[in-house]
Amino acid sequence: MTGEPVVLINVFEVPEGRDDEFLEAWQRAADVLREQDGYLTARLHRSLAPNADFRFVNVALWESAESFRAATSRPEFRRTTPPFTFHAALYEVIREVDRT
Amino acid sequence: MTGEPVVLINVFEVPEGRDDEFLEAWQRAADVLREQDGYLTARLHRSLAPNADFRFVNVALWESAESFRAATSRPEFRRTTPPFTFHAALYEVIREVDRT
Repeated sequence: MTGEPVVLINVFEVPEGRDDEFLEAWQRAADVLREQDGYLTARLHRSLAPNADFRFVNVALWESAESFRAATSRPEFRRTTPPFTFHAALYEVIREVDRT
Repeated sequence: MTGEPVVLINVFEVPEGRDDEFLEAWQRAADVLREQDGYLTARLHRSLAPNADFRFVNVALWESAESFRAATSRPEFRRTTPPFTFHAALYEVIREVDRT
């Protein structure tokens, strides 16, 4: 552990017309996770275009990979998994490029 | 235009072992974009696991969708497109969930 937060990025495939169903499920999961050790913050992004490959993208900060894995192993979280295909992984920021 | 920045999220499929090739191409594109009107900042994320579905994710802020589209239509940018499959779209932040 370096002490730097890790970044969870989770991209969701949500067909047009199912935003409300997704948002309800996502909020249930977020309400469980925000109470767990190591959770810092989450930002849910929605595409401007309704037909993007990934309609929703969650970018969340966790104190460590270990705390993320412990939280998402809990049964009360696993029961909230939304019924949509998603691709989740942990990331680190390797480059920041500001305006010239 | 609301005056809120838009968020470009671009997820890249990069096979194991090709990080250096990707990073060179990405930096060339970033060096063009950072000089364009409306560019604010970019953060390149790399997965902790080498075999994630999306090895790299760029999260960048632009002043508006129009400025992003104008910048990425420029020939000098289009020549820098990396030879990897990517999924890019513009997003807005619709929920922020801090720790309870």
